[in-house]
Amino acid sequence: MYGLEESPTELVNPAGKSDILLICEHASHFIPESFHNLGLTDAECLSHIGWDIGAADMARVLSQQLDASLVLQRYSRLLYDCNRPPSEMSAIPPLSEVTAIPGNSELTDEQRHYRVERIYQPFHSEIEAQIKARTEAGRRTVVVTIHSFTPTYKGELRTVELGVICDNDNAFANTFYQIAQQASDHDIRMNEPYGPSDPVLHTVTRHGTDHQIANVMLEVRNDLIEQAVGQHEWANLIGKVLNQVNA
Amino acid sequence: MYGLEESPTELVNPAGKSDILLICEHASHFIPESFHNLGLTDAECLSHIGWDIGAADMARVLSQQLDASLVLQRYSRLLYDCNRPPSEMSAIPPLSEVTAIPGNSELTDEQRHYRVERIYQPFHSEIEAQIKARTEAGRRTVVVTIHSFTPTYKGELRTVELGVICDNDNAFANTFYQIAQQASDHDIRMNEPYGPSDPVLHTVTRHGTDHQIANVMLEVRNDLIEQAVGQHEWANLIGKVLNQVNA
Repeated sequence: MYGLEESPTELVNPAGKSDILLICEHASHFIPESFHNLGLTDAECLSHIGWDIGAADMARVLSQQLDASLVLQRYSRLLYDCNRPPSEMSAIPPLSEVTAIPGNSELTDEQRHYRVERIYQPFHSEIEAQIKARTEAGRRTVVVTIHSFTPTYKGELRTVELGVICDNDNAFANTFYQIAQQASDHDIRMNEPYGPSDPVLHTVTRHGTDHQIANVMLEVRNDLIEQAVGQHEWANLIGKVLNQVNA
Repeated sequence: MYGLEESPTELVNPAGKSDILLICEHASHFIPESFHNLGLTDAECLSHIGWDIGAADMARVLSQQLDASLVLQRYSRLLYDCNRPPSEMSAIPPLSEVTAIPGNSELTDEQRHYRVERIYQPFHSEIEAQIKARTEAGRRTVVVTIHSFTPTYKGELRTVELGVICDNDNAFANTFYQIAQQASDHDIRMNEPYGPSDPVLHTVTRHGTDHQIANVMLEVRNDLIEQAVGQHEWANLIGKVLNQVNA
């Protein structure tokens, strides 16, 4: 097997001084040639099923505004969804929303293991290494994962603009939500369009909650951040609120 | 003076194995808060005068497709245009196209020097260090700079889609141009919308021509690469042609 020789991790602003550690698991739509688009068209791979449209670019703006380190995942979520543990079927989805993924069906154990070993494990090891280095340097860490969601899912229109996603008893996320609501007229909601009953809390649980590290997962509707102006506006709002919560 | 503490350089895929070294001088529209947008509106800073719209994202796709290292500049070109030597007035433009830049007029020598020292010098030193390390490792380098241009400049519409920009006697660029023309029905031209009579060849001259290193500057019309689909399509074409020229 080959095609996943490149590191799955891109580290932006590694010297960033903020407590915030930004993570973007679905940053890229990149599928190496040897995977033949997993049997999909270019348009399918470039749609929201392949990546979180606008999320990486918004996260880069945030990284600069906050002077925060940012860990990006460099492969399409269709190859491996780094916000899912290997035990989840949807980690290597045979179906995404309503699209069957031929290149993900009937994989051998070896093929699954190759993706886990080359994408999931090194990506999360890098996050662990970052947090460990900060802790050893006496620094605090707040884990903030940046996502975007499609305005139309299985035919249903979503009006929420920013979702604050977390498990119960998450003080950081609750405070973020309250301040964001006061600071903005946008449609901001707690645990929409996803919530703790969906399998979306893997990264914040593994690196945050499980270690008593403050964390929040943020979901912006992708039509708002397709282009630079929106990425900038939403990064401004999110950055301002994050700084207030963390003050 | 403060505000430019962050490194101006982001290095993507530093372990990339391709001969191609990608450079994007106008990758970012970031202006630190202490510069108060240089007196401009957000919309002005996010327009083509602030950065090369789409260029960085297309360059990132290229970097992955080619497995090539990519050096990105992390500040707005309005703070310092890294494709200009410090001696050029347009390095810190008091006027960009038709927009006066209040924060760039009547700068003291010390203020100019601060920007040169914090943006221009370390950015080009990083490129030099990359090329030196490759040469010492017995590797070949081809310098490819990635730019985008506005479809309408001073009221005039530009129909060219991809410009191949170079000085006379540039074999790599000439071959690129010929192969690209054969490979595509797009409007591809040599030395349009800019050419050797414009002060745009600084980076390729300094790091390429002056050291007998193959080089080319590429300019894509920015309306074609504002979003992921176009970035992907143009990266596919450019990457395929670069690989053929470099074969």
